Amino acid sequence: MTKHDLSLFSAVQSAEAIQNGRISSEALVEACLKRIEETDSVIRAWAYLDASVALDQAREMDRIRKAGRATGPLHGVPVGLKDIVDTNDMPTQRGTTIFSGRRSETDARLVEHLREAGAVIMGKTKTTEFAFMHPTDTTNPFNSARTPGGSSSGSAAAVAARHVPLAIGTQTGGSVIRPASFCGVYGFKPTQGTISRTGVFRTSVSLDQVGGFANSLEDIALLTDVISGYDQSDPASFARPRARMLEAAQAEVPVEPNIAWLDFPFDDRLDVDTVEGLDAVIDGLGGQVERFSASPQLSDLINVHKTIYDYEIRQNMAEISENHWLAISTEMQSAINRGAEISVTQYEDALVVMASARSFFTEYFNDFDAILAPSAKGEAVPLNAGHTGDSVFCLAWTLAGLPCLTLPFLVGQNDLPIGVQLIGAVEEDDRLLRTASWVQRSLNAQEQQGE
Amino acid sequence: MTKHDLSLFSAVQSAEAIQNGRISSEALVEACLKRIEETDSVIRAWAYLDASVALDQAREMDRIRKAGRATGPLHGVPVGLKDIVDTNDMPTQRGTTIFSGRRSETDARLVEHLREAGAVIMGKTKTTEFAFMHPTDTTNPFNSARTPGGSSSGSAAAVAARHVPLAIGTQTGGSVIRPASFCGVYGFKPTQGTISRTGVFRTSVSLDQVGGFANSLEDIALLTDVISGYDQSDPASFARPRARMLEAAQAEVPVEPNIAWLDFPFDDRLDVDTVEGLDAVIDGLGGQVERFSASPQLSDLINVHKTIYDYEIRQNMAEISENHWLAISTEMQSAINRGAEISVTQYEDALVVMASARSFFTEYFNDFDAILAPSAKGEAVPLNAGHTGDSVFCLAWTLAGLPCLTLPFLVGQNDLPIGVQLIGAVEEDDRLLRTASWVQRSLNAQEQQGE
Repeated sequence: MTKHDLSLFSAVQSAEAIQNGRISSEALVEACLKRIEETDSVIRAWAYLDASVALDQAREMDRIRKAGRATGPLHGVPVGLKDIVDTNDMPTQRGTTIFSGRRSETDARLVEHLREAGAVIMGKTKTTEFAFMHPTDTTNPFNSARTPGGSSSGSAAAVAARHVPLAIGTQTGGSVIRPASFCGVYGFKPTQGTISRTGVFRTSVSLDQVGGFANSLEDIALLTDVISGYDQSDPASFARPRARMLEAAQAEVPVEPNIAWLDFPFDDRLDVDTVEGLDAVIDGLGGQVERFSASPQLSDLINVHKTIYDYEIRQNMAEISENHWLAISTEMQSAINRGAEISVTQYEDALVVMASARSFFTEYFNDFDAILAPSAKGEAVPLNAGHTGDSVFCLAWTLAGLPCLTLPFLVGQNDLPIGVQLIGAVEEDDRLLRTASWVQRSLNAQEQQGE
Repeated sequence: MTKHDLSLFSAVQSAEAIQNGRISSEALVEACLKRIEETDSVIRAWAYLDASVALDQAREMDRIRKAGRATGPLHGVPVGLKDIVDTNDMPTQRGTTIFSGRRSETDARLVEHLREAGAVIMGKTKTTEFAFMHPTDTTNPFNSARTPGGSSSGSAAAVAARHVPLAIGTQTGGSVIRPASFCGVYGFKPTQGTISRTGVFRTSVSLDQVGGFANSLEDIALLTDVISGYDQSDPASFARPRARMLEAAQAEVPVEPNIAWLDFPFDDRLDVDTVEGLDAVIDGLGGQVERFSASPQLSDLINVHKTIYDYEIRQNMAEISENHWLAISTEMQSAINRGAEISVTQYEDALVVMASARSFFTEYFNDFDAILAPSAKGEAVPLNAGHTGDSVFCLAWTLAGLPCLTLPFLVGQNDLPIGVQLIGAVEEDDRLLRTASWVQRSLNAQEQQGE
């Protein structure tokens, strides 16, 4: 045992300490495993975890370092993977009994990047069924009677509970941002196409996007740098340079950023503590935030999202639903049935609106560095609500493929975390992260002044 | 036109100047195209070059930069690809009429990395037939009556002639190191498995390795950083961090390195100017070089190499040779015929020796930072010799998968370049590059003192 609890180390800190030989990856992974052992009977974040598989990787990374061979940016740092991300050494069961014990022979492309970076693949974190709506049994680390949010339930919970400093999630609606908000961690879904989806279960080719969870802005930026990359076999992937995320998260803004707030008709769903908290954030940013009303076209994007999602999930679930209809949830059955009611024309019209939304936002971010928005309705909803929360505050941004980041800044009336969302321009994730760093420093300074 | 001839810029310099907006990628690519236009009727380095395809990429990289979007480490810098490396936008014809006009639908994995780095894929450079022995019509930029070496003939010639600052080659015997030596450029083949071979024509799964050409140590290191990466679909690729090449090339050695020289029986093939030049290098390194005699086992590795190469090339050429026997060269026909004479047992025995050679060298490099060796017999051989030179001085190192680097330090009796080879430990390419940088500085200092 070391005198520090290594499970509290950040990823940036851990990687540096391992590279300098001050701590071993084995000790770090052991500390994380201990934390998991102590708390996962309640939190239930892990769908698959084999301590020996994780420790073998950690020892290998320690051997490499001791031999003076090359180390990677996540050398020896454990990472959790949502249970829809394939690896060649662990099952990937997609949150359904239909795929119990399923193993892939190949790693997802993003797992190749993690291994090349020296990361330890800790295990698979629980996902809602097929990364859609039907909840898993994971509980919120802040309150075991609440949901961690979904669909990346286990990844958000595992990072919040310090089981791992980093975890991978995916977002088709709000499945990174909302669980991060509910669990009080940083969540980041970069520009669509930044991270490859090869080897990740597909629900919607137009909407599925990969993101991650961490306990600091630097950590989430470092993770994103590592897993970003061009992959011609993913139709959304772009053959251009990726933003340098960690560099951006550590940079100063050249001038104070311009931030927009858009009022949407569905803002009436926000809890009162969320509204108050966001108002305080806006006040705290000293006049840098301008408020506007969202146009009816913008507000309607949530319906466009629904059309595309229902239509595509039915396509992607075709074979599974044909063979296992009774083994899929009623939530999924309903979506598939809704998808069947959507005509090709309706779907194609929705794709056209999606494309025009993307053009609209490209123009929009000429005037603004970021949009400030709610991450979720409020605090995590009770488990007995039977769902993982409302994704409405994420749909428009996800549809437009914009980079979305949630910062764990607020606390609600039940002392549970509430996130603050920042949305940026496509392929300008670096500008978004610089802006977020400024927002964070400004609010921290404000808070200290207030004390 | 700018006042500088941009085709003389290094890759590191160009990438920096483009990122800072001091030059455009379009101007750089235009300068390279002009240089090609002026000299390629004699050099004949290019198998495929479409100025508009190259310029379109350059303009796109300029647009990205001007829009303030992310730039890559080779942003706007043109790179030539040996004509066995697939791209989805150009033919890949493998130096044979059998594949005239052949196009791939996919990019090689290393091309994905180049595009993600912002590189401009300039075109395809000429290769010997199937990257084996039968020469192409490319001439040496220093003397058009001489070979550029092979098999990566066009890549070495194009970099030497300043058609492009960087080009990709492959080495199964000595196909990066020898042409680099003949053309007076830096050639580097990193540790086997550092760079993916997916999308690169296979002649030998055990021996084929990817490398590159440049006009400086920093440039070759930067190129290698960009194209390195884990790829599970390549059986030689390793799931571990890669050495940071550019950082190493710019680093100081912690102590003066220990360098070994091994005398081989086949050293009697060396030209007298090569022997004298290498002796001067050894003298110049002030006692840091120890001379040994290679053991008979080490000397025999060249035969082990031949057994594996002939056996595997026959396997990989099976379908082509069956359908196109008359269209393949006599050199290739002979190799296939030799391969047919090798028994499975002989082949498997050779693989066992190869594995033991790898273990041997792992131990060996505990005592030495690098091996100093000839890159080739001497100056480039005349074209009318009908071959691209002798690869014997590369075979043992290639067989053992060691990182090999050639530095353009010597000049022969006909004023043609002769390279100096440095070989390092597996997966310690950074140590090799640091050592090379020290060698370079030491010899430069020596030369200035001598003047």
